[in-house]
Amino acid sequence: MVDEVRRSRLIYGCMGLGGSWEDGSYDDGAVRRAQDAVEAALEAGIDRFDHADIYRRGSAETVFGEVLRRSPGLRDRVVVQGKVGIRLAEPGAVAHYDLSAGAIRARVLESLRRLGTDRLDVLLLHRPDPLLEPDEVAEAVAGLQRDGLVGEVGASNMSAAQLAELQRALPTPLVADQLEMSLARHGFVDSAILVNHPEGAGVDFPHGTLEHCRRHGIELQAWGSLAGGRYSGATQDDQPAAAVVSRMAEEHGVEPEAVVLGWLMRHPARIAPVIGTTNPGRIRACAAAERVAAAMTRVEWYELLGAARGRPVP
Amino acid sequence: MVDEVRRSRLIYGCMGLGGSWEDGSYDDGAVRRAQDAVEAALEAGIDRFDHADIYRRGSAETVFGEVLRRSPGLRDRVVVQGKVGIRLAEPGAVAHYDLSAGAIRARVLESLRRLGTDRLDVLLLHRPDPLLEPDEVAEAVAGLQRDGLVGEVGASNMSAAQLAELQRALPTPLVADQLEMSLARHGFVDSAILVNHPEGAGVDFPHGTLEHCRRHGIELQAWGSLAGGRYSGATQDDQPAAAVVSRMAEEHGVEPEAVVLGWLMRHPARIAPVIGTTNPGRIRACAAAERVAAAMTRVEWYELLGAARGRPVP
Amino acid sequence: MVDEVRRSRLIYGCMGLGGSWEDGSYDDGAVRRAQDAVEAALEAGIDRFDHADIYRRGSAETVFGEVLRRSPGLRDRVVVQGKVGIRLAEPGAVAHYDLSAGAIRARVLESLRRLGTDRLDVLLLHRPDPLLEPDEVAEAVAGLQRDGLVGEVGASNMSAAQLAELQRALPTPLVADQLEMSLARHGFVDSAILVNHPEGAGVDFPHGTLEHCRRHGIELQAWGSLAGGRYSGATQDDQPAAAVVSRMAEEHGVEPEAVVLGWLMRHPARIAPVIGTTNPGRIRACAAAERVAAAMTRVEWYELLGAARGRPVP
Repeated sequence: MVDEVRRSRLIYGCMGLGGSWEDGSYDDGAVRRAQDAVEAALEAGIDRFDHADIYRRGSAETVFGEVLRRSPGLRDRVVVQGKVGIRLAEPGAVAHYDLSAGAIRARVLESLRRLGTDRLDVLLLHRPDPLLEPDEVAEAVAGLQRDGLVGEVGASNMSAAQLAELQRALPTPLVADQLEMSLARHGFVDSAILVNHPEGAGVDFPHGTLEHCRRHGIELQAWGSLAGGRYSGATQDDQPAAAVVSRMAEEHGVEPEAVVLGWLMRHPARIAPVIGTTNPGRIRACAAAERVAAAMTRVEWYELLGAARGRPVP
Repeated sequence: MVDEVRRSRLIYGCMGLGGSWEDGSYDDGAVRRAQDAVEAALEAGIDRFDHADIYRRGSAETVFGEVLRRSPGLRDRVVVQGKVGIRLAEPGAVAHYDLSAGAIRARVLESLRRLGTDRLDVLLLHRPDPLLEPDEVAEAVAGLQRDGLVGEVGASNMSAAQLAELQRALPTPLVADQLEMSLARHGFVDSAILVNHPEGAGVDFPHGTLEHCRRHGIELQAWGSLAGGRYSGATQDDQPAAAVVSRMAEEHGVEPEAVVLGWLMRHPARIAPVIGTTNPGRIRACAAAERVAAAMTRVEWYELLGAARGRPVP
Repeated sequence: MVDEVRRSRLIYGCMGLGGSWEDGSYDDGAVRRAQDAVEAALEAGIDRFDHADIYRRGSAETVFGEVLRRSPGLRDRVVVQGKVGIRLAEPGAVAHYDLSAGAIRARVLESLRRLGTDRLDVLLLHRPDPLLEPDEVAEAVAGLQRDGLVGEVGASNMSAAQLAELQRALPTPLVADQLEMSLARHGFVDSAILVNHPEGAGVDFPHGTLEHCRRHGIELQAWGSLAGGRYSGATQDDQPAAAVVSRMAEEHGVEPEAVVLGWLMRHPARIAPVIGTTNPGRIRACAAAERVAAAMTRVEWYELLGAARGRPVP
């Protein structure tokens, strides 16, 4: 990554690239599909790519690395973000988290090898490992930064309290917290509007985390931002809300994806959606999201919220 | 409002005054009933009156303004508190919140016109609008204060984290947070006693908010403080607790309302109940609440809590 | 207590000692059983003993006091920790909390008399009394410390927000927070791993409290640490998890109790388990817990967690 990288608001999530979740095997078709997805993302103005060591047992990174190799110069024009900390189940070991110093370094080195690059521009700690020692994490991160293998550091699925505890130990400011947020997973909004409301007890979003991140300049990244496609035809799960999305898409002259993302981006926390579809057409459709966000009225935003919640605000 | 206003602990909530929630229409009977309610409140020693722009589509303010006009000198003896931020549903727009700078100013100007006064002594932000920008709110509030249209500023239905985020931007200290608290809505107590208790997961009160408000001198105002009259004969919803309230009312030589409010006021957070009944007799009955609070034993307080909770403390 | 007391990580919880929960009556058998339990605890290297004024209506303290009298020199070799703040139901008074200044002092004096000692090395505030006034608590504690009747002060069943509010008033740093934590009551872990996860809404542990305690050097003590014996044969409540515990106990060459406690102690928050069994054999079995914690692999820890949760981490 060089300084002139623009850092798009949208982030392309590479979990869908690569091969099998069982053993990581993939064929050349997987590389071609990855190439198509990356090209569509670049056309949509996206220059940030989100990875994790576990995505398809490493094959998401391997395939992305192959795409980089086939496109000379591409690596310098994009931000590569990785994640470590989750260990999938395997014979003799249940699924677990591991943010011990040794594991952080080993997993980053493996990711770099698979990606065929010499540095992760951003490293996210994937899940809050209850056994993590902040000082140990800090030491591992500092070492990776000193060696030029990692640029910035951030977190994922963490609350304000967890971010603050980590930050006290870390050598550089946390730059991101990646949480599941979407029109379907609207806990980040419910948490604000259901304070002291009977429905509030069912909210799982960590209250105060938006405020903490805004205060400390920690970017809020949204995984699952397209809500599994439920508002754009992938499922029939939530027809009433999908109908509102469709109507607004038509009114704004865009595809439903742009409305779903635009709703997220209209929020003042400046959420950066991570989009995970591998369909080139859908990826390109996301390019209009920022424009929709700028044009979306307050009433439209609340109408979408109400449709997704199945009820108006209190 | 002049300096010699006493600022009673009790606040009269004007949501019940005025006309129709559909279109705001009202007749002269509504003005007479408002006059009776205000007189009863004044007799009960209450000199704070709580409004919101949306109460009966503005007619609560209009009718109260008429009462002020008919009672020369009254305006100078009372504190008028207003609220803005909620927009009721209307054709073409779902119910929503709006704490944009323009909306705050426009709504306050409309309220002042309806109230026939030149200033809101206290302005509360009615609900936490997820789309609010703290800096924008601060600018709007500062402008209203500079123009003498608003005195102090506070919030409603907000948590510690939300108050803190707002405060960082606001020019003056938040003076109040108005939350639903009563013998029936005892989440503010459950939140304290059910820490790490299985029942605690069902509590919706924003934990830490009492502590935050006490620390920063933010008055805790309780809306719904009379619990819809369920302990004083309005409904048959909770007979066992109503029976305990009745017995204690008799023992203290007061009406049930004074026990229900006295229970709230016995709490060390110095909660200021907002009472919403329009029945002059019930309003007068509230005058004894502060005396009951001073006389209420710890065991009485816990007995009322246990009756309302339907079980003793853990 | 003198300076050379070692302060074992394990704490013996004396709730099971003494006589009747109804009236506190006990016979000499109760004293002998207490003596056996205390001896087993000492053999297991435990030199901290946890009390509360209410345990068996005071008879836990009385019986422990008798054990002290029968073992000259013992008092100087152990840490005695007491708790006040809960009032059991009695004729004319529902169960309630009382952390008023007068009650704190009176209850401590009564405990000292029953224990036959002149000082509580540590005093914990048993439950967060919603009616407590921090300044009043601070005054009572300071007085007891000045008079040499109490050494350090801590809390129990309190959240970060409650600890912080108390600390602002207290003259000395809070040294402990005693919360229910065990392999069965794993909310302290769920609270970390279920951030923004649908299951997270059911978690009752006060999020951020582990972080707060670690930051401020407040020891986390775990009551109910043996989970009522459900993983060590006392009940058949959770067979799948009990089977995992048994297998690991065999692999580590210890009793199940040591695995259950070792799991708690493997957590980096340095949790101090309070063990409440009165069975001398089980007490001795706990001695191996610290060794198990040191030897327990990350995968073993997560396997136990998954077995107790009934599902793997997200």
